[in-house]
This record gives sequence, C-alpha cells and structure tokens, in this order.
Amino acid sequence: MSKLFVYNTLTRQKELFEPINSPHVGMYVCGPTVYGDPHLGHARGAITFDVVYRYLLFLGYKVRYVRNITDVGHLENDSDQGDDKIAKKARLEQLEPMEIAQQYTNSYHQEMDLLNVLRPSIEPRATGHIIEQIESIKSIIDNGYGYESNGSVYFNVEEYAKNYHYGILSGRVLEDLTSNTRDLDGQSDKKGSLDFALWKKATPEHIMKWSSPWGEGFPGWHIECSAMSAKYLGNFFDIHGGGMDLAFPHHECEIAQSQACNHHTPAKYWLHNNMITIDGRKMGKSLNNFINLKEFFTGNHPLLEQAYSPMNIRFYILQAQYRSTLDISNTALRAANVAYVKLLNAYKLLDKLSWQLGTEVNSTLELEIESCIAECHAGMNDDFNTGVAISGLFGLTNFVNQFHLKQKDINSISENAFNHLISTYKVFFKDILGLKEEKLVNADNTIAALLGFYQEAKANKQYDKVDLIRQVLKKEGIVVKDLKDKIEWAYEA
Amino acid sequence: MSKLFVYNTLTRQKELFEPINSPHVGMYVCGPTVYGDPHLGHARGAITFDVVYRYLLFLGYKVRYVRNITDVGHLENDSDQGDDKIAKKARLEQLEPMEIAQQYTNSYHQEMDLLNVLRPSIEPRATGHIIEQIESIKSIIDNGYGYESNGSVYFNVEEYAKNYHYGILSGRVLEDLTSNTRDLDGQSDKKGSLDFALWKKATPEHIMKWSSPWGEGFPGWHIECSAMSAKYLGNFFDIHGGGMDLAFPHHECEIAQSQACNHHTPAKYWLHNNMITIDGRKMGKSLNNFINLKEFFTGNHPLLEQAYSPMNIRFYILQAQYRSTLDISNTALRAANVAYVKLLNAYKLLDKLSWQLGTEVNSTLELEIESCIAECHAGMNDDFNTGVAISGLFGLTNFVNQFHLKQKDINSISENAFNHLISTYKVFFKDILGLKEEKLVNADNTIAALLGFYQEAKANKQYDKVDLIRQVLKKEGIVVKDLKDKIEWAYEA
Repeated sequence: MSKLFVYNTLTRQKELFEPINSPHVGMYVCGPTVYGDPHLGHARGAITFDVVYRYLLFLGYKVRYVRNITDVGHLENDSDQGDDKIAKKARLEQLEPMEIAQQYTNSYHQEMDLLNVLRPSIEPRATGHIIEQIESIKSIIDNGYGYESNGSVYFNVEEYAKNYHYGILSGRVLEDLTSNTRDLDGQSDKKGSLDFALWKKATPEHIMKWSSPWGEGFPGWHIECSAMSAKYLGNFFDIHGGGMDLAFPHHECEIAQSQACNHHTPAKYWLHNNMITIDGRKMGKSLNNFINLKEFFTGNHPLLEQAYSPMNIRFYILQAQYRSTLDISNTALRAANVAYVKLLNAYKLLDKLSWQLGTEVNSTLELEIESCIAECHAGMNDDFNTGVAISGLFGLTNFVNQFHLKQKDINSISENAFNHLISTYKVFFKDILGLKEEKLVNADNTIAALLGFYQEAKANKQYDKVDLIRQVLKKEGIVVKDLKDKIEWAYEA
Repeated sequence: MSKLFVYNTLTRQKELFEPINSPHVGMYVCGPTVYGDPHLGHARGAITFDVVYRYLLFLGYKVRYVRNITDVGHLENDSDQGDDKIAKKARLEQLEPMEIAQQYTNSYHQEMDLLNVLRPSIEPRATGHIIEQIESIKSIIDNGYGYESNGSVYFNVEEYAKNYHYGILSGRVLEDLTSNTRDLDGQSDKKGSLDFALWKKATPEHIMKWSSPWGEGFPGWHIECSAMSAKYLGNFFDIHGGGMDLAFPHHECEIAQSQACNHHTPAKYWLHNNMITIDGRKMGKSLNNFINLKEFFTGNHPLLEQAYSPMNIRFYILQAQYRSTLDISNTALRAANVAYVKLLNAYKLLDKLSWQLGTEVNSTLELEIESCIAECHAGMNDDFNTGVAISGLFGLTNFVNQFHLKQKDINSISENAFNHLISTYKVFFKDILGLKEEKLVNADNTIAALLGFYQEAKANKQYDKVDLIRQVLKKEGIVVKDLKDKIEWAYEA
C-alpha cells in the first residue's frame, strides 16, 4: 500500500508522514470559541480533522487527539483590542460568562455529534489552564521575549525576530507587517506595534479574571494553545491543525511562544482547512447569509429551500479536498444528497450480497474492483483527499449494484476479491469517512398505513391477515385496539 | 396553590422554601468523579436534582444550576489515603489521566442525555479551578484554620471546633469521631486525626500536579466544591444537593471550609438523595451486582432478564420520594414499565381529545379532576414527592382514557376544566417529571410488512393499493423497487 503524504503549511509542500514517536501520534486542533451556535465553518474544521483522526486510527496509529474549547481571552479583533467575545455575549444575555461558555459548548457537542464527529481524547478549556498559561508566560519573560507593562504582559516580536523567523508559517514578512500596522497611538502599553498580549490586565468590573504575578487579569488568546498542547502532547508533537484563517496571527504567535518558552517549534506538521462560502460569498452576519447548523438541519432560514440532514452536510464537505475552498448552495447540497443516498443504498446492500465459488474467475472484473479499492486508499494517502476516496467508492458502488441486480456474476470473482470489496466499502463508508444511515423514517406513518390494511382485512373477514398485522406490530411493542368506531394503536405495557 | 416545602438536612425538618434573592435561585450539586461508567447511583442523583431544577423553573424561578465534574483529588478512601481514583485508572489503562476524565465525562453526558436529564447551567471541572482552590486554602490558613505540613496543607478540625459546630450537618459528635479514629501512626503529617487535606504534596512521578505556595501538589477533594460554588453562586446560596453518602465527611467539610474561609455557611438548604439497592443488597463490585446504565439499557448483564429503556429507569426512580431508599429488581422494573406505558399512552391521547360546550356541566366530575390536579402539585410541593405527583397523574389518566372511550362525556366539563386537565398532564409528564416518548419502533419491520402487502396487491392487480403503498413510503423518502424476482426498497435520492 502507498504511504501517507500530508501538505505541511510550514514547508509549503506535501511530505511523507513520519510520526516523531511511532506508533504514537499527537494531534492538536484549535477548537471553537464558545459564544454562539456552531455554523458551517465549525462543521468543516471539525469534520476535516475528524477524518484525519479516523484515518490515522485506521492506519494503526495510537492517536492522542486534543481539541480545545476557548472560553476566555478571544477578543473581538486580533490586535488585542475590544471586548472578550464571551464576556460581551454574557452581558448581552445577562448571564454569567461561564453560563454562556457552557451553553455553547453544549450546542457545539450536540451538532458535532449529529455530524458523527468523534470526540477528541482530551478537550481542555482555556479557563481550566490558567496556571499553565501563567507558567508559560513566566518562562517567556525569563527568556527575554516578554515584558510587563502596566499590569499586562506582551510578547516582544522585535526581540524574537532577532533570533528566530517570525513569519515562518504564514510567510508574512516582518517589515511589511510593521509598515501595515497603524502607529501606536500613545495609549498602548506595547513597545512595538506587532507585539501581542500574553496577559491582559482586567478592569475592576471585568468578571473573568484571575490573580497572577502581574495582578488581576486574564490570558491572551494565543497562549492557551501553547500551554495546553505542551501539557498534553509535550513540547514537540506531530500535527497541529486548524482553519486557514488561524495561520496568522494565531498559529504564527503559537510558534513564537513555543520557541520563546521551550526553544522548540511546537509541531512537525501544520494542517489548515480552507473556508466555506455561501453562494459565492463569505459568510458574515452583516451579509445576512450567516446560517448556523441547526438552521441547515431544520431548513429554517430564508436562504434555505429545504432542510439538509447532518449526513448530507457531512458528505458535501467531504466531496472536496479540505484545502480547497467550498461553496455551499441549495443546488449543490441537493446534488450531494443524491450522491450520498446512492452510496448509502449500496452500503445497505452489502450484507445482502452472497458469494459462492463459481466455475470461472473473471480476472478483468477483479482488476477493475481492485483499481477502485486502490483509488480509495490513494485518495486518503494523498493528503486526505476524501473527494478521490469517494470517487473510488462510487466505482465500487457500481459493482455492488450490478452484483445485486445480477447484471454481473458475483461468483466470477474470487472469495478474496469479494471480501476485499465488502470490507473496503464498509471501512471507508463507516469508519474513515464517518458516514452512516440516519433513521429518518417516521414509524407513525407506516404504522397508520398498516392499520388501514388491518381495518380492510377485518371488514373482509380475512382473519389470517388481521393476525399477521397484529403480530408485526406486537414485535414492535405495539398493540392494536379495536374500538367500537375506529382502530387505534397504543404501546403495549 | 400551596407553597413549596423542602426537607433541609441541616435543620432536620421540612421548611418553607424562600430563596435568598428571589426570583433567583442558586443550586450546587455534587457531580460525578469521572473514572468509570455511570451506574444507577449516578442516575438517581442526577434525576433527583433534575426534577428539583425542573420544578423550580416551572415555579418561575431563575435558576443557576451548577454541577461539578471531579477530575482530580478524589482519593480511594475518605481519610486522605490511597491513590487518586482517576490517576489509578489512567495507570491501569495506560492513558493520560485527562483522557480518562474526558472519556468518562463523555459517557456520563451520554447516559444522562438518554435519561432526559437537563444539562446544568455551569459544569465546572476541579482541574479547571486550581487557582480558586489555592486562594481559598490561603484564606483558611490566614484565618487560622489551616496549616502547612511537609508540603501538604490540612484543615485544623480541633481549632475550628472551638468556634464553630463541626458536625452541624451530619449530626456527628466530635468526641465520638475522635475516639473512633485510629491513632496517628506517626507517619502522618496531620496534627489531629480528624484533620483533612486541603492540598496534598505530589510525588515526583505524580502526573496531575500544579505549582502552589506550598510546592507542587494537587487539591484535596472537599475544597473544589467550596471554591467552585463560591465562584459561581457566591458565598451564600440557596440549595446544596448531593447523595446521602456525601453528607459526611464531604459536605461537613465543605461547611467547615466555607465558614473558615468566608465566615458563612455556604448554603441555606441542604438536600440529600437516598441510595439504591439491588435485590435488597448494596451495589458493589465485590458483590457482582454492580450494573452500569449501559447494561440496563441493553440488558447485557447476568442479573438482568431483559433490557430496560432509559424512560423505564427514570420512571422507576421517580416513583419513590428521593429521600427513601429504592430497591431495584427485574420484577419491580417491569412493573414500572407497565405503569409508565399507561401514562405515555394517555399522554399521546391528549391531542386527540376534543371538547365542545355541552348542555350541562357535571360539577362532581370537575371536582374529581381538580382533586387529581391538586394531588400533582401537592406532591411536588411536599419536598418534591414525585411518587405522589405520579399518583395524581394516574388519576388524570383514568379521566383521559374514559373521555377517549366515551365512557364519560368530555363535553360535560367546562372549557376551563378541560384545558386545566390537558395542560397539567402535559406539564407534569414532560416538563416537570421529564418523561417522554422513546422512539423504539424499528421502521424496517413495518416497511417490510407493507412491502408484503404491496407484493400481494400487485399479484392481484389491485393497482390502487399498489399506488397507495408507494405513496405512503415515498412520503418517508423511500422508493419501492420492482425487481424481476423480488420487491425491495431503497432510500430515494
């Protein structure tokens, strides 16, 4: 089998994946800032790294997957200005900030469960690791790359850039960044305009604050990921993932912090998933095209022509390679559903196919099947190209359907080829791509139809049919009630 | 309507419930130590306080409900000896302790969701509040009730007892406790045998440890609840809940800590749910009668004769008042299911009942209905006696069934009485008791039965019936496939 190659943002090329300490793999992915209901962007990030996680498990690695919850320190804009996003939402909803964080952590979990995203091994919260962040900040100051200023602590980018490459991940050039930044307005505590906050002094009315060597305050946004990834994965781990919008400044700052703190870049491979657009435009609250996942699942949004099930959304996201942009529209989602249902129907046929030794082996047919199987593996090994893997599955789907309809003779392939087809389809559909059958049938309606036949059979005195329907429903815990004027059902006690 | 009375363990009597700052109610409940799959004891505690929470919301209170996750500091026995439960499990399973905590936090959430237990407003983790615990310990030391000894910090019970009543909650007498405690063996760092750990020094190989003013270590079990309840609910809040086994030493120590730290007992009302026995015996791993919730839901345990659904379990627990002991057996669970299904079937009839103004009002009938409604409310107001409330619901169930079967004339009661019956039944069944219909019907079987009739109709050339079945299934997103040799169904793309 071919080997796994991954695109590393740090080196800007596809590299052979070789874990630092195989078979162990440490993976850290930036999770949500929990101040609103999860939307498609959350879905794409979570599903992208869910498939990475699932594929690494399939390859036999022992993966420790850490995905954080940001519940403090993420300010409204990236230049350390404005409100904490969660604190602001808490004020708007007149709740304790931690109630906001809890509410949206719960809704994140709910929606990701519906999308069949596996839970990470560890899901640390930023507020739960204040001590670890303070320790990291102390080291950064001790090593000469951080300074206290008026109760806050900042990272000294100019000093860092003397010894290290600031911009190594994002490709940004320090001089350009500096000239693009507004001059310090004199009110800032920063020495340099590119310096970023490690610790922010809290005003007296600020609720989310902790005591620290620099007084009462709260951590900057970037430091949580450095502190928590090091705590649970060590100073140098295999994969760091996140959305492409996080590469700068967030991940660039993480690298600087880890270098300044531990004298080591934190991760070997940096993976970034691309963004989602809606009808060709960026999602944004001001554009009125901000659709959250609950709205997709219910169809309850003016831009949506119908509801789209979680597996419909998941499949749509998986059709593209994670580094491509992805545009969502009603037409595209409906087309994805047609394709997904085609795979699902074939998946449901797998256990119905039976094979027995035929008289002759059709080796051309075997080769065609093996070629589709190889396409599944090759797709995943080429930087998790789920679109190619799905194309391989569609190839297999044709064979499954033809075997089922006896358009091709299933007994003309060897037992090995048959088993390989069945097991590959199951593993890719269920374990690697994380697709599943959604039970969407409302049994109330099928039961009602059966009761219609019951009534008819009774009127025609076809008692064997009456008994048959009673038995079918009894197996489901349902008892038929013959009332004077109508037929009803109830749960059997 | 009558007022709510609650049994307060602190005063050993039922008291009128009067919130400190109405309409706000602060409630803290001791949650799970996450080192194993949740069992019936977890279910009873969570369901008990879920109903308290739901009833307070029904009464119109604005409730902030905090339930913690203990992920560090809970040692194997209560006298500060032995291993940390989570660290031990992590060693056994060769995982990072936080992976253990995450795994069992997830399974706790899963099972509680199945039991229809509402999530609390805030779910703080002990490891997420180390700073707050250190601050509390510093105050206790400053106030003269704590002392450092060899890198650990202990609470000085003898000193505390000079000024406060140690034993106020549990009724334990200090002298008895002292004489029942083994003498200090000389190896302990404690001054007195009743002293308990606020902070424990960590050995070098210990993983879960943090730096503190007393060196590297981890918090004692009791201090987390004092620190986290004060952080999110203030120094004096309304309700503190937990299992009866926590009253001593855990809650007694919490009171001592809060007094020593804030000069105030933490909570006004202390509520404790009683334990569950199995076939008359205490649950225990050594007794081979330790059945976890997953095993109840699947029936997969030698002591279980069948599976019991989450609502079956929930209903069984609610049949008893929470302060009574409760014995579980196959017979008792089956009986509970019969009763639950009776209520559920009536609940499903509510929307089918229609009322119109009759010629005469039957005021005796109205009074009988109002008496059942009053029983529902009286039960809940009498210290959340769900058993009595359920008995009121059964009274209402009889009327619902009689109206449905036209054994009693629904039009002989006033519109108000009719609406009161319907709304009370719905609110108590769904909102207060938290019961619901579980979709247990496997649609595959009802679909298969319909396809049988389809085939028969086709053979008999009854094409109207053929079309009818096609239409019924099409509404469910299912298409019938007429193959040469058989009839099948698939999802419609």
